[in-house]
Order: sequence, then C-alpha cells, then structure tokens
Amino acid sequence: MSEIRENWITGEWVIVAPERAKRGGNIVPSAEREEIASFLSSCPFCLGNEASTAEERFRIDGEDGRWLLRSVVNKFSVLSPTGETQPGSRPGPGEARVNGVGLHEVLIESPRHDLSMAVFPVAHVQRILETYRHRFLEFYRDTRVRHVIVFKNHGSDAGASQQHPHSQIVGLPIVPGQVVERIGRARRFFAERGQCLACVQISQEREQVSRIIAENAGFVAFIPYAALSPYHLWIFPKAHVACFSEQPIDTFRALAEILSTVLAKVHGMLGNPAFNFVIRSLGPQEKDASHFHWYISIVPRVNKPAGLELGTGLYINPSLPESCAQALREFPAF
Amino acid sequence: MSEIRENWITGEWVIVAPERAKRGGNIVPSAEREEIASFLSSCPFCLGNEASTAEERFRIDGEDGRWLLRSVVNKFSVLSPTGETQPGSRPGPGEARVNGVGLHEVLIESPRHDLSMAVFPVAHVQRILETYRHRFLEFYRDTRVRHVIVFKNHGSDAGASQQHPHSQIVGLPIVPGQVVERIGRARRFFAERGQCLACVQISQEREQVSRIIAENAGFVAFIPYAALSPYHLWIFPKAHVACFSEQPIDTFRALAEILSTVLAKVHGMLGNPAFNFVIRSLGPQEKDASHFHWYISIVPRVNKPAGLELGTGLYINPSLPESCAQALREFPAF
Repeated sequence: MSEIRENWITGEWVIVAPERAKRGGNIVPSAEREEIASFLSSCPFCLGNEASTAEERFRIDGEDGRWLLRSVVNKFSVLSPTGETQPGSRPGPGEARVNGVGLHEVLIESPRHDLSMAVFPVAHVQRILETYRHRFLEFYRDTRVRHVIVFKNHGSDAGASQQHPHSQIVGLPIVPGQVVERIGRARRFFAERGQCLACVQISQEREQVSRIIAENAGFVAFIPYAALSPYHLWIFPKAHVACFSEQPIDTFRALAEILSTVLAKVHGMLGNPAFNFVIRSLGPQEKDASHFHWYISIVPRVNKPAGLELGTGLYINPSLPESCAQALREFPAF
Repeated sequence: MSEIRENWITGEWVIVAPERAKRGGNIVPSAEREEIASFLSSCPFCLGNEASTAEERFRIDGEDGRWLLRSVVNKFSVLSPTGETQPGSRPGPGEARVNGVGLHEVLIESPRHDLSMAVFPVAHVQRILETYRHRFLEFYRDTRVRHVIVFKNHGSDAGASQQHPHSQIVGLPIVPGQVVERIGRARRFFAERGQCLACVQISQEREQVSRIIAENAGFVAFIPYAALSPYHLWIFPKAHVACFSEQPIDTFRALAEILSTVLAKVHGMLGNPAFNFVIRSLGPQEKDASHFHWYISIVPRVNKPAGLELGTGLYINPSLPESCAQALREFPAF
C-alpha cells in the first residue's frame, strides 16, 4: 500500500507509491546525452561571444587573463532594473499588482559550453558559490528588492533555454506567497517548540541515517521523508544559519565539496538528468532569525506533474525516498 | 515593463512579461499532431480490449448495445481501495503520514482512440460531465474519502501515459494542504466582506469584458487577471454553487456547451496542445457553503515551470492575459 507523507518543512503532502513506477510512460528520458561541442559560435555565453550578452556586472579572471565566470544582466529579464515598485497598487477591485521592477542576472559558470556543475573541479564550484554570495549581498543592497532567489535550470526539461552552464539570480520587489508561508510555518514551529524546525529535522535524519546521501564537516545532504519526486534532495548546513550570505566563508570549501559530490552522483546514476536547484534563504536583514535555516533544494526532473498535482498541490512520488537515498549514497561520486 | 499580479482566488503571484516570449527556447511544441489510428489493438482503453482494464464500476451504452463510456478502477492506482486510513499516524518525529487508502478510477471517455474532448459532440461532453457527477457523489459516499478531485491529462507533456481520451477521479483520505489553504482564503474573504470571492470576481470580469472568452446562460469562461501561464483559463457557473454535484442537472447542457466551445478554441488556436483540467469543488457535505464557488481550471501546457517557479511559487507568464483572452474570444470554436 502507498503512503501519504507530509513534509514538515514545506507543509506539502505526497503520495509515495513505488509500485506506480511499473506503469511506465511517465518517466522522462534524461536530458542531453549527445556529444556537445566545447565552444559554439552561436552560443551567447561561449568564450569569444561576450558582445552577445548584456552588461557584465561581475567577473573572475584566471591566471591567463581569460575569464573563468561572468555575471551579466539577463538580456531577457522579466524585471526592469529602473523604476519604482509602487507596492500595493490596485488598478481595479481584484487586481492587485506591483510594477515588475527588480534585478535579474545570469551567472555564466564557465567559458566552456560542454561542461556542467556536476563535472567542474571542486575549486570552481566553490568560486561559483562565492559568486552567488557576492551577487546575493549586492542585490539586497537595492532597497526595492524584498527577496533574492538563486537558482539553476539544467536541461530543457528543467526549463533551460540555453545549454551553456549557467545559473540565475533574481531580486524580486515582493516576497512571494509560497516563501511567506514557509517562513510562517517555521516561525510557528519555533514559537511552539523553541527550536528551529530544520535543526530538529537535520538531527533526526542524521540519527536515522536511512535518507542520508552524503555528509561532511559542515553540511549534510538527504532526501526528505516526503520528497515530492524521485531523487529530490536537500543540502543543509549542520549548524544553524538563517541566511546564505552569513554562512561562514571558511565553510564554502565544504559546501562546494558536498554539492559536487551530490551532483556527480545524480549525474552518474541518472545519466545527466535535467534538474533545477534553488537556494532557499532569508535576506541578510534577518540573519539573526532563530526560526529559519537556509538550504539548497535539488530537483532532478525525472517525472512530470499532471492534473492531480495542479488540482490539489498533492504530488505522486513513484519511488521510495529511503531507496533513492540508499542508491545515491552507494553510487560512487567520481 | 512587466507587471507582478496577484491572483485573488488562489493567492498566487505571477510575473506577466509578454516581452519574455521573444527569448524563445522555452515554448513547448504542441502535443500530438501526427495522424492517430481510430482503434489500436495495443491500447487497453480501445473497444474490444475491455479485458485489459481493471474492474468496471460504471458504463453508459449506446443504442447499438456498445459502450459509449466506461469508468474503471485505475490499474495503476496510487491508492488502495481496501484498508483504513489511520489518520495522524506519526511513525517518528517529523514523519506525519496516513495510509494510502482511497479510490481512483479512470473514465474512458470514448471507444475511439483518436478523438478528444475538444472534438466530441456536445451531447457526449454532457454525458462525460454527468458521469463525473455520478462518480463524484459515489466517491463521497465512502466515509474514508475526505476530498474528491476530477481531472484530465491530455498529451504526454501534460503527464498522460495513455493517448486514448480519458479522465481520472481520485478520492483522497486527506484534504490536501493547497485545497485547505484556498478554502481558508475564500472563507476569510467571506468573513470580511460578506460576499463570495468568486462571485465578486465573476461580476467584475463580466463588467470589464477584456478577459472573457465565452459566456452562455449559466456559465462564463475567462482568463484570470493573474493567469500563471498562457491561455490558462477558468469556467465558472454564474450563479453561486459551492459543490459541483449540486450544480442543477438541467444546466449540464450549458456546461457541456461552454466546455466544448473553450476546448475547441484552444485546440484550434494552439494546435491540439497538451493540457490539464481540474474541477475544484467542495464536497456534498458542504454544499451550502456561502464562501466557496466550484469551477473548472484548464491549463494548456505551453511553457515549462523552472527553478524560479520551484523556488518561490512565483510564475512567469510570457503573455498578457488580456491578449490571450481576446485571441481565444475571436477564434472560431468550430
């Protein structure tokens, strides 16, 4: 019999139905297995095509003087960097809106077209994470920005429109409802129990072991008890930190190591699947919050949400989180 | 400049960014344009293959004695029809679960493999809607069932694993969090304003006209002010009814007409796109609720949610709801 599980951290419910996988038909084949060129003259993110991108806002150069990564304004940004938000404007009853003002950069992770975060050297992953931190802090300095989200779409099934390895950083003029709700959930838990919900969850996962994928001095990666989809996983700092940019900088090596390990396992086991990742964090102005704990969520896009998910918010996971965790835990990272 | 709009009914926010469509790359081509056979010997839902399905629970026969539609137990149900729910069971701290007990039927909408709801005669769409009503009521008679959802996945991009026209009805042993939250939202609005939120929205849409797609004696179809994706649309009964099965049966002809019209427009204009639809309704036990108004939500799957959507619940709609509505309104239904 399947189980319906509740995710403590997100409040989402999922039907865990491993027998469902037998049905077939709903598993999306992995994204890009074909040979990819190292450089493409038509790719705006490739070395030599810098003029194809919008304004560069940040870069790191290598010892040979060439860039190693660049953060550029998103040419097709959904938000305008100029103007005011006019919060709470209501053009008519039932029509709440704010202006689409905000910041949107694309972090081009490498001059190379064919690589991806799962195969970058750890030192380069660390450079990317430190750049996220830099842009995250920079975005929050803009007083119109109320929430910053760092995310990555890898593969067209994950919504990527460019194959070249890249991440995105968006500074929104609102705090989205889903974020408000999850923070509220964490706040209520703290009010009732005097503990951070994620801290409690992390210590339980480490005690139980069955859903752990990897762990090092500072971080732990596990599949949530109520993972919405196969191999959906989280990376948490073990010590309580509310805000990503407040994570001690001397722990970024360990963060890069666990992220590299986990992505290499996912890449190897699922054959370079399409995936998304997002960093969920409070802003620096709330860095001292006891109720929230920042983390990275990684979602391989191996199945498709359909009518049930749209109509109820309830997901079907055709795999057992404990089995997925065991498989990933045992799969070699390199 | 883009706009960030709030959906009153759902509480969701969306970045409405019509310029975004220029980016390209993220629009999914329409589902199945190739020629499809009328009958397939390998399809478990085709006429003659009745032995391939699990137990039949309902059927309507035509005058020639052959079936016109059948509702069968889902062979790959995610829920078990036997057993008890054991609500609130907590195997460990942070591990809330209930048994996956519930009902799950597939409504095979036609003996023909190649047709779809967008091209069925109106009388047949009415028959399907009346069958939804029958199964909906039947499911709620099971005391273990707390919420019933009727939905349809059309095309593999919408999560359908079978091409043959079919819908699904699921009876869940829990009320999913998203449903609870939206009902709560409607309840709060009613407490504050003494009016049904949807009734207010419907009367505004009819006054403004700009987002209306179609209307008849009993129903109105429009694109929400804050539609999450292009051509995402809603069909509401104009008079207040909280529960789908309490919709007066003599209005089902008009319901079938507007559903047929809208689906034919979407099918014609977007070239038979993959889509989902769901019926959002309270159960019969709450039929007298003043705060909730049942409706059908139709979501053509023309773009893919990515990291931003996963990480914030905030969607990007690369189209203007008013333009999509005008295009659909003017597109011939047949």
